[in-house]
Amino acid sequence: MCGIVGMIGRETVAADLLSGLVAIQHRGQDAAGMATYDGRFHISKRAGIAETLRAHLHGLPGASGVGHVRYPTVGGGGEQDAQPFIHTAPFGIALAHNGNTVNYAQLKEELWVRHRRLLNSECDAELLLSVLAEELSRRTETGFSVDALFEAIGALAERVNGSYSAVALIADHGMVAFRDPRGIKPLVWGRRADGAVAFASESVVLDTLGFSAEGDIAPGEAMFAPAADPTAVVRRRVVPETKQRLCIFEFVYFARPDSVIDGISVYEARLRLGERLGRRCKSLDVDVVVPVPDTARAAALSLANAVGKPYREGLIKNRYIGRTFIMPHEAKRRTSVRLKLNPIRGELAGRHVMLVDDSIVRGNTSRAIVELVRTAGASRVSFAVCSPPLRHPCLYGIDMQTRNEFIARSRTEKDVARLIGADELVYQRLDDLVAAVRGSSSVDFCTACFDGDYPTHVDRETMEMIEAQRRTACQLPLPGT
Amino acid sequence: MCGIVGMIGRETVAADLLSGLVAIQHRGQDAAGMATYDGRFHISKRAGIAETLRAHLHGLPGASGVGHVRYPTVGGGGEQDAQPFIHTAPFGIALAHNGNTVNYAQLKEELWVRHRRLLNSECDAELLLSVLAEELSRRTETGFSVDALFEAIGALAERVNGSYSAVALIADHGMVAFRDPRGIKPLVWGRRADGAVAFASESVVLDTLGFSAEGDIAPGEAMFAPAADPTAVVRRRVVPETKQRLCIFEFVYFARPDSVIDGISVYEARLRLGERLGRRCKSLDVDVVVPVPDTARAAALSLANAVGKPYREGLIKNRYIGRTFIMPHEAKRRTSVRLKLNPIRGELAGRHVMLVDDSIVRGNTSRAIVELVRTAGASRVSFAVCSPPLRHPCLYGIDMQTRNEFIARSRTEKDVARLIGADELVYQRLDDLVAAVRGSSSVDFCTACFDGDYPTHVDRETMEMIEAQRRTACQLPLPGT
Amino acid sequence: MCGIVGMIGRETVAADLLSGLVAIQHRGQDAAGMATYDGRFHISKRAGIAETLRAHLHGLPGASGVGHVRYPTVGGGGEQDAQPFIHTAPFGIALAHNGNTVNYAQLKEELWVRHRRLLNSECDAELLLSVLAEELSRRTETGFSVDALFEAIGALAERVNGSYSAVALIADHGMVAFRDPRGIKPLVWGRRADGAVAFASESVVLDTLGFSAEGDIAPGEAMFAPAADPTAVVRRRVVPETKQRLCIFEFVYFARPDSVIDGISVYEARLRLGERLGRRCKSLDVDVVVPVPDTARAAALSLANAVGKPYREGLIKNRYIGRTFIMPHEAKRRTSVRLKLNPIRGELAGRHVMLVDDSIVRGNTSRAIVELVRTAGASRVSFAVCSPPLRHPCLYGIDMQTRNEFIARSRTEKDVARLIGADELVYQRLDDLVAAVRGSSSVDFCTACFDGDYPTHVDRETMEMIEAQRRTACQLPLPGT
Amino acid sequence: MCGIVGMIGRETVAADLLSGLVAIQHRGQDAAGMATYDGRFHISKRAGIAETLRAHLHGLPGASGVGHVRYPTVGGGGEQDAQPFIHTAPFGIALAHNGNTVNYAQLKEELWVRHRRLLNSECDAELLLSVLAEELSRRTETGFSVDALFEAIGALAERVNGSYSAVALIADHGMVAFRDPRGIKPLVWGRRADGAVAFASESVVLDTLGFSAEGDIAPGEAMFAPAADPTAVVRRRVVPETKQRLCIFEFVYFARPDSVIDGISVYEARLRLGERLGRRCKSLDVDVVVPVPDTARAAALSLANAVGKPYREGLIKNRYIGRTFIMPHEAKRRTSVRLKLNPIRGELAGRHVMLVDDSIVRGNTSRAIVELVRTAGASRVSFAVCSPPLRHPCLYGIDMQTRNEFIARSRTEKDVARLIGADELVYQRLDDLVAAVRGSSSVDFCTACFDGDYPTHVDRETMEMIEAQRRTACQLPLPGT
Repeated sequence: MCGIVGMIGRETVAADLLSGLVAIQHRGQDAAGMATYDGRFHISKRAGIAETLRAHLHGLPGASGVGHVRYPTVGGGGEQDAQPFIHTAPFGIALAHNGNTVNYAQLKEELWVRHRRLLNSECDAELLLSVLAEELSRRTETGFSVDALFEAIGALAERVNGSYSAVALIADHGMVAFRDPRGIKPLVWGRRADGAVAFASESVVLDTLGFSAEGDIAPGEAMFAPAADPTAVVRRRVVPETKQRLCIFEFVYFARPDSVIDGISVYEARLRLGERLGRRCKSLDVDVVVPVPDTARAAALSLANAVGKPYREGLIKNRYIGRTFIMPHEAKRRTSVRLKLNPIRGELAGRHVMLVDDSIVRGNTSRAIVELVRTAGASRVSFAVCSPPLRHPCLYGIDMQTRNEFIARSRTEKDVARLIGADELVYQRLDDLVAAVRGSSSVDFCTACFDGDYPTHVDRETMEMIEAQRRTACQLPLPGT
Repeated sequence: MCGIVGMIGRETVAADLLSGLVAIQHRGQDAAGMATYDGRFHISKRAGIAETLRAHLHGLPGASGVGHVRYPTVGGGGEQDAQPFIHTAPFGIALAHNGNTVNYAQLKEELWVRHRRLLNSECDAELLLSVLAEELSRRTETGFSVDALFEAIGALAERVNGSYSAVALIADHGMVAFRDPRGIKPLVWGRRADGAVAFASESVVLDTLGFSAEGDIAPGEAMFAPAADPTAVVRRRVVPETKQRLCIFEFVYFARPDSVIDGISVYEARLRLGERLGRRCKSLDVDVVVPVPDTARAAALSLANAVGKPYREGLIKNRYIGRTFIMPHEAKRRTSVRLKLNPIRGELAGRHVMLVDDSIVRGNTSRAIVELVRTAGASRVSFAVCSPPLRHPCLYGIDMQTRNEFIARSRTEKDVARLIGADELVYQRLDDLVAAVRGSSSVDFCTACFDGDYPTHVDRETMEMIEAQRRTACQLPLPGT
Repeated sequence: MCGIVGMIGRETVAADLLSGLVAIQHRGQDAAGMATYDGRFHISKRAGIAETLRAHLHGLPGASGVGHVRYPTVGGGGEQDAQPFIHTAPFGIALAHNGNTVNYAQLKEELWVRHRRLLNSECDAELLLSVLAEELSRRTETGFSVDALFEAIGALAERVNGSYSAVALIADHGMVAFRDPRGIKPLVWGRRADGAVAFASESVVLDTLGFSAEGDIAPGEAMFAPAADPTAVVRRRVVPETKQRLCIFEFVYFARPDSVIDGISVYEARLRLGERLGRRCKSLDVDVVVPVPDTARAAALSLANAVGKPYREGLIKNRYIGRTFIMPHEAKRRTSVRLKLNPIRGELAGRHVMLVDDSIVRGNTSRAIVELVRTAGASRVSFAVCSPPLRHPCLYGIDMQTRNEFIARSRTEKDVARLIGADELVYQRLDDLVAAVRGSSSVDFCTACFDGDYPTHVDRETMEMIEAQRRTACQLPLPGT
Repeated sequence: MCGIVGMIGRETVAADLLSGLVAIQHRGQDAAGMATYDGRFHISKRAGIAETLRAHLHGLPGASGVGHVRYPTVGGGGEQDAQPFIHTAPFGIALAHNGNTVNYAQLKEELWVRHRRLLNSECDAELLLSVLAEELSRRTETGFSVDALFEAIGALAERVNGSYSAVALIADHGMVAFRDPRGIKPLVWGRRADGAVAFASESVVLDTLGFSAEGDIAPGEAMFAPAADPTAVVRRRVVPETKQRLCIFEFVYFARPDSVIDGISVYEARLRLGERLGRRCKSLDVDVVVPVPDTARAAALSLANAVGKPYREGLIKNRYIGRTFIMPHEAKRRTSVRLKLNPIRGELAGRHVMLVDDSIVRGNTSRAIVELVRTAGASRVSFAVCSPPLRHPCLYGIDMQTRNEFIARSRTEKDVARLIGADELVYQRLDDLVAAVRGSSSVDFCTACFDGDYPTHVDRETMEMIEAQRRTACQLPLPGT
């Protein structure tokens, strides 16, 4: 995961960009970066949350800019690997993106050998920028044109296999946003009364900054906001139409509940997830329904309604546990559960408790929570999961490790229940997941992490390489799961 | 407000102290400090959240220590004014406390004139320490004794008018915790299997660190844990018995829901607050009950049950808005509401919404929230407040400004409703507040901020001086209200 | 001014690069930067002295790298404007240089309009790098070759009007050092027993790091050290032979006395400067000869011998006055003289003192020193200057402001003596300066700051523009003069 | 070593205090601290040079204050051990000193056992302050008086065995400076036209800040400058008169040449040292006399005159080698010689060189320098040392390690010459040292490091303990020797 924001207007944008990044801070707390332009690019990248950029706002003048928040990386990834990236030719381009490149190694080699170009980081945003720069340079020898830009993005789409929702600022010319042909990652845009245009990973950025939400960039589409008049946007599908395959995990876990993605309210999708899951939990006859905060709250509420049992906040989350506690190592994760969550004995003691969580990855956190609830006196613990068993690695930006780390990999529901110490475990069914998230829309989803059906071509070799050496790039662990 | 932790055992305590401070981080994010002892005192104080101390843990060796988190101050208050404070005589004492001294100015003058002692900060923890040092010094000329220590604390109680829950580490001898005669501020203690003893503002610290909660330090009581064997605690009432007057605002707003204070579960007190308030809201016939997160969640849930209407999470809180946004200036507060809260249109549009919040101070945030909910399409907005109108300044550690800043000061419920833009406003009644918080216990409360009945003697002169020049010390604004 | 170091070998070079930068720290204390390569470039730039890079050495792996120290800038120049600069295509190039580009504005425009390339800083190192990248890219479409590299540098020499001594690291291929056709700025190289090759602004870098000094890069020459075997250097004159015009001010003021530049020992040149100047001071019959430390020490010593009078250290310099005191503003300069220099009354009182300094720019420091010596009781103060009157701006990297700021601009020796408060003033004659510095060598010099004879073509328009708006780039004030 | 400054006037003193500390920066670059008073004390202590305090000046208001620079410590000594120290009773006292307490351990124990007072650092300034506070408190129960203060300092002199030159700021009352009965460490004072009074370790502080030098605080004397009118100083000998034993090493190495201590100009003392030493070097018939910069310059100049040979700057010192290179470990010292010093081949090659240095401690640096000079081609190297062989540990503040580390310990001049690789070695004779430094004054000196004659009582037990466990306090290695 990662989150991006782009903004182009008439006034200094840095403070707004920062507020925008804070609005999508949940998409990454490992590093944050911003690049603005006022005749030259200014850039600031820092390890940690977006707030760390506040001290540097004065050094980021300019009426246009792009920003990025990065998910914690497994193996490191210093400030040098943080986004955005800048190239000074052609024109000067600053780019930030959210996604992952499946054929990264092949493209890197190709750039070095064929085009004598060095990738100086391990972040695929630099790759995307290099390919874009190359394709654009070739088409603008006599000068910049929006057509040339759209063609360049079309060419990029043919070379890059993977997911990407990107925003790029082109010096003096304008800002372009584009989304991969399958539209795997979200990307929205909006206008504001003062003539500014913004692009962002989630619609909450628009709400926060007072933009009207104008909808989504379509899969395979590019949208250009000219510097001369940003609101005079030009948009074009730069690749032949293909079926969208929107990441369903955004609804399960990643996105903020108050976001609307491709027309679907995340909050309402979660209510529907709880409702569908509830239908299959009625027989359990629990005493109380308790969400694992914060993500599962909406689903637990509708699940409680569906089973006709009281909803209670039986687990209290410490709001001040910061990214320091989001550590990749197993040992630390277990220790940290007690720092993050504390049970309300009065709601749990002597009761049959139905815990509701969004998903289970390795199962360590789930096991610790079940134990916590038992220690608080619960007489019986059922565990309801809003999504089906995770069994396949994500190739498009969510690092859920190799498939061997999934607790549900080649295990039955009962096995998993036993391993996490629950009396019963109820997973969502895949068809229920899709139906619940889709609601009344007609969106199709990438459900590869559940069923292995990858929306872009992935040969066996690639698959093996990915499992063998997970790149540190912008791929990261799922926290809290 | 402020929060304290003390711990004495056999192993290095700094990392645990820090985890303890993180557990009560909600009691203050302005500054944090820790002092440990291993033959000499080591101290580290930093502006910001407790996490900023992590980088300094290696410089804090020792098997005993005290820690403190400070609430943001109105007028500043640098690191020099942060707690803990240390005196090297008698014995060496490090002290941290939560509370406020009503006769600060008089005692400061007395110390300088009569005892030639300079108070070198504006924090009354230094005052408390100076008085303790003096009283103890006088009684230990032939050596330390626990009796002398208890007598010194008794003498301190006669000189200091105000609230204090304090923990003090006495070099080589042990750790003492004590609470003012009225027990205004909370203070609990616990033991751990490894022979360590801990004191803390809230029981969640004990839960987090694996201590068994042994209960509260009683009003006017002192408890000493000897360095030689911390678990061999000695306790004594050091002042004649007086009726407790526990701060009721801890239950309304400050304490974590998962804390238990003087035998009362904060979470359950809040459920009862919602239930009582709900009885008086039935006639409103709302469509949906929506809490202002996070504090009002439990009360809103029981209120929804009481009125028989659905509870929904119609406002989403950004978990990543940090203390930077907790700014004292009105202007910034209004701006920040949109960064903190975002409405779920689907839960609000076209409905009669009952918002539930814990309290209203100046009313600015409430007005902004009502407006937010209307913008999201609510057809009618009712506002239920879990506590009665705030009308009197707190003299014991909660800075709610002078009485002129209270929106409810000399205004009717209707006036307030109009000012915050709500169609209806329902305040809790004072007797309901007290009954709800008390539950089945027999605790009495300080309700001075609601009714002006101060539990310690306050003459008119003092009252006026306090309103005139609010000290910056450990008194601070109520955030988010 | 500025100073550069480049090093390529088999072991990690960062620590040695840093020691090298410390050895030429006198060439710039405003900012320091290093870039190393180990498959990707690593870069660190910091405001302040080179020592500030020490904390970042661990992040600079690789067996080759370039470093830079920057002279304090008049108008700012943040870390973003600091050297080295990196381009990722062709191949990946990191470059640092010492010098100044006369036709900067024209080349910047040309790059943007004709080549769609943005210069994203105000440092002409980025310009040099961009021109090099372009010329190299055009010649290496089928792959890298040393011939292509040398041709590219030749083409660069035709486009860039100015001074430059540069070192560039080309990813995977090697390191190249090159010097402008007139050889205005110094550039030496050396080998070490371990197979490493180094390039540097001054030979003291080689001494410090244990390299044997192999001599100078010739004017208009390029020298390439291949990554495969750095000692197998290849060198070529890449422009037609022209007469060298080495900056004579290096010998007067800038270079370290223990450096040897184009075969001339700086220390010995200074001895000769003192000797020649002494011949013209004999008639003054002073009592004692006192250098203004540190630069004038060697010249004062030989001057004392020449006039047959005792040499004494009558002014003591505080070794700990750092760059903070090197401030551009006149007011602060005067104040700071007393912090920097203190007179030894016993050596000055009642005597006719001959002060010896290297040069006079604005005259403020000289005036303050004369006053200091009088206050210490000197009966008469003569002032001997090792160089002629400064009257013309330097266009090649030494910022001595516009010509109106020179105290000697349209003033006689007598006027200047009066202005600085000296009883007599003796300037070096230009022919003596040249003869003294040249010694037994056959080097020719740029003496433009004394006589206005610029070694590269400078039209009136350029001249006026330069005086109008001095760029902040790598041009800076002369400290201590 | 260490250096102190105190200043009391009518305007903010912090900036002047800082300039004063920079003027005596040579006395310690390990840590710096300042405390000022404006109704309360403000304090800032930082590792590193005084300049690091500049960023904190705004937090140091007040018209009086004391400052300190600390010599690098062997074993550490964090910011907590840095001076000044503050006690809030009686009155509030801030103290800084230069010196060392011989009976530290005994006094520490006495304070704890008899007075229940903890020393919370390993710096004997805290000890001095604690003793002063105690003695003063006892005598001021009815209020402050200058008599009481002087009596307290007299009592302190009886308890503390060692050297101390101290300055203490007493809240609201004034500033007192005092010197141990033997006057081992220097301490001067001055007045300024604006009514301010200053105290400092060296007279250069007064020169730098525009104070008139009023002379020295006498051995065993205390001088008080009242806050009401600082220039109305009161002074008194607080102990019976004893013969002064001024540290002779101040003249050999530590003090700045432009300082005047107890009436003796350091510069002139060094000229006399060179002259006396020269008389014994005539027979060597060297070609050139070369100082080891910077300390030995004056002595080498007069030595050259005495032997009738040319003085030349054959070794160039890098002015930018900072404290980072002043490392306690032997290995690093050797490496760092080449970074610090570079030979001028032209002055050394083929010649018989007489090197002149101030002293030899362990001999490592001397050996490296001799080798450097040989490598530069010297045909013969003689080594002249301005002081006699060092053979006894200093107990009064200069850490020259245990006696076993002295190269001259139980070795002849010839042995030492061989060990450092010199052809000849000439030490100064002790009687010549004393006569040269004394000049026309009548001062007596502590020469314990040369002859073991300690001016205060030192029993064998103390001696052994000191050699066994050198405290890290304010005792440190001699750099560059």
